[in-house]
Amino acid sequence: MTKTTLVSLADSLGVSRQTISNVINAPHRVKPETRARVEAAISASGYRPSAAARQLRTRRSMNLGLRLMPVHDGINGSILDRFLHALTETAQRDGYRLTLFCADSDADEIHQYEELLQVSDIDGFVLTGTHHGDQRTAWLLDHDVPFAAFGRPWNDAEDPRRSRHAWVDVDGGAGTAEATAAFLDDGHASIGFLGWPAGSGAGDDRRAGWQRTLAAAGVAPGRIQELTASIDDGVQTGAVAARHLIAAGATAIVCVSDSLALGAAMELRRAFPGVPAAVTGFDDTPVAAAVGLSSVAQPIEAAARHAVAVLTHQLAETTTGGAGVPAPEQHLLLPAALVRRTPYPLDTGIPTAGTP
Amino acid sequence: MTKTTLVSLADSLGVSRQTISNVINAPHRVKPETRARVEAAISASGYRPSAAARQLRTRRSMNLGLRLMPVHDGINGSILDRFLHALTETAQRDGYRLTLFCADSDADEIHQYEELLQVSDIDGFVLTGTHHGDQRTAWLLDHDVPFAAFGRPWNDAEDPRRSRHAWVDVDGGAGTAEATAAFLDDGHASIGFLGWPAGSGAGDDRRAGWQRTLAAAGVAPGRIQELTASIDDGVQTGAVAARHLIAAGATAIVCVSDSLALGAAMELRRAFPGVPAAVTGFDDTPVAAAVGLSSVAQPIEAAARHAVAVLTHQLAETTTGGAGVPAPEQHLLLPAALVRRTPYPLDTGIPTAGTP
Repeated sequence: MTKTTLVSLADSLGVSRQTISNVINAPHRVKPETRARVEAAISASGYRPSAAARQLRTRRSMNLGLRLMPVHDGINGSILDRFLHALTETAQRDGYRLTLFCADSDADEIHQYEELLQVSDIDGFVLTGTHHGDQRTAWLLDHDVPFAAFGRPWNDAEDPRRSRHAWVDVDGGAGTAEATAAFLDDGHASIGFLGWPAGSGAGDDRRAGWQRTLAAAGVAPGRIQELTASIDDGVQTGAVAARHLIAAGATAIVCVSDSLALGAAMELRRAFPGVPAAVTGFDDTPVAAAVGLSSVAQPIEAAARHAVAVLTHQLAETTTGGAGVPAPEQHLLLPAALVRRTPYPLDTGIPTAGTP
Repeated sequence: MTKTTLVSLADSLGVSRQTISNVINAPHRVKPETRARVEAAISASGYRPSAAARQLRTRRSMNLGLRLMPVHDGINGSILDRFLHALTETAQRDGYRLTLFCADSDADEIHQYEELLQVSDIDGFVLTGTHHGDQRTAWLLDHDVPFAAFGRPWNDAEDPRRSRHAWVDVDGGAGTAEATAAFLDDGHASIGFLGWPAGSGAGDDRRAGWQRTLAAAGVAPGRIQELTASIDDGVQTGAVAARHLIAAGATAIVCVSDSLALGAAMELRRAFPGVPAAVTGFDDTPVAAAVGLSSVAQPIEAAARHAVAVLTHQLAETTTGGAGVPAPEQHLLLPAALVRRTPYPLDTGIPTAGTP
């Protein structure tokens, strides 16, 4: 390595890394003679402790906190993992690191905020999974903690565009509307919706996109009601719920997730043999691509980049009192896009021929 | 919240969180009268700044660093994401947080180590993706930085059991040997191996498990040579390479990854219509489960828990000079397990019937 680094400097001076770090960040901890010697060496070497200097200048830790959501299902988990990767890369380009934590609930997440603010000196948070009655955003606002949410506020009384906090989200409802319209174009008259139990903001929004498209096509409210099923996420639950929708006459099914869609695809193939399953999932996961399932894709990397931009701008404002850089959009709804595929046959019946 | 927290304490005293944090962590920064008032309130309130106190007592940051590997393929990426989740949860239970970073190369990763040690005061690192000629482990050893590796050392000259650094790994070769033996039991005589280009430690190890099983079954070395193909990971590359193996007579294929296996499964079904594809992947990803592909599973959560245990034990030793707690196994090879499934037919031919 030709570049002077903290380590090469420490080696050449015969002092510890910590001593050099203290000279930069906490000079009062270092004996005056050592401090003078290290400072002279720093000047002579051309060593540029860029991140450390910035940290000192801004009095920020340059760490952002993110709760790692539990893995319920490896299929749908991939979307949050893509978000995490994009977040880490973007934050690092801006000089920030990401600190991860786990929590069992909103209340526990708030408890973790407190501990992280106190112990790890976190500068701000990125939230995911906003939902009805979310206590986390209120807590962060009340305590003046900088944050950006992936997910709009879902409180009925509030217009998301007037929210007191920054958010970026994807227009899932427009995605399911597009999927529903595509099935109408294909000639399907009875299009079912397989969703999560009511109360999840994103899930309700996706159901609403399907519902308003059927209503606009003249489907009666009572019929729309018959064509929807709500169930916890999963391939098996998807298969079970799809059976009910097919019994109610559905020939195509729009799903809130790829896991449910995978189960629904099996049932549609069983009900309509020899016909590609008319089903769409959500999130365009690797599983959807692998089995040829149509799915609504979220621009998740763009959402992550925007969340970081909003948060780092907030932090810069806090420190400099406004550097004159225009703020990124505080409330941003990104478009979703339907990815149409013709599915490989997914059959539960196994051929009876033996191995070669 | 009934429990006294940093925030409730700050609110009741009318001081900032930072002031309380300073009283605990850097009392010299706080005016004596404020410090006395806060200390009295802390005693009276029963507030227990557990993590902060531990940080102060141990002089550790309680932060562990992990490089987030780039996403090449959403299919195989899921295994490292499971590792990340288990690592975060286990570390947090031990009072540690995980700090993520990105790097383009080993050299860049080392550069990030330096910056993280200096700026973010990271206590130690977890490494993944050890490989032949790995410069990272040498650097960390040279600089006395505590770390644990997921992946054994792959330098030919070195016996991994005598490595100077702690590692935990999964016996991938035993997994592919089991998969190969299962195909032999099924009556397959020509079993191919679809692997990555030579040089990746884990990939070579998985190939070796297949190779030694065929050799033990009496397959001639020249024939073994004809039955292996090396190619970059991916579904399409897997299909292309599988065609060559099938042309060479392979009726079953053991694969180094689920992505390659998915491509191979399509080609086997095309070559042997009406017969379940005799293919195994590696990592037992959600995609393998979704399409019914057999795959070798790694006990990835156990590996993550062990890596954390080794690292936190090292850190405790550094601080206390040995607390008498026995050290966890420094070189641990965990077993892999073949998950056998009968695959759903994966056909590239799409039925010609129209939509209902």
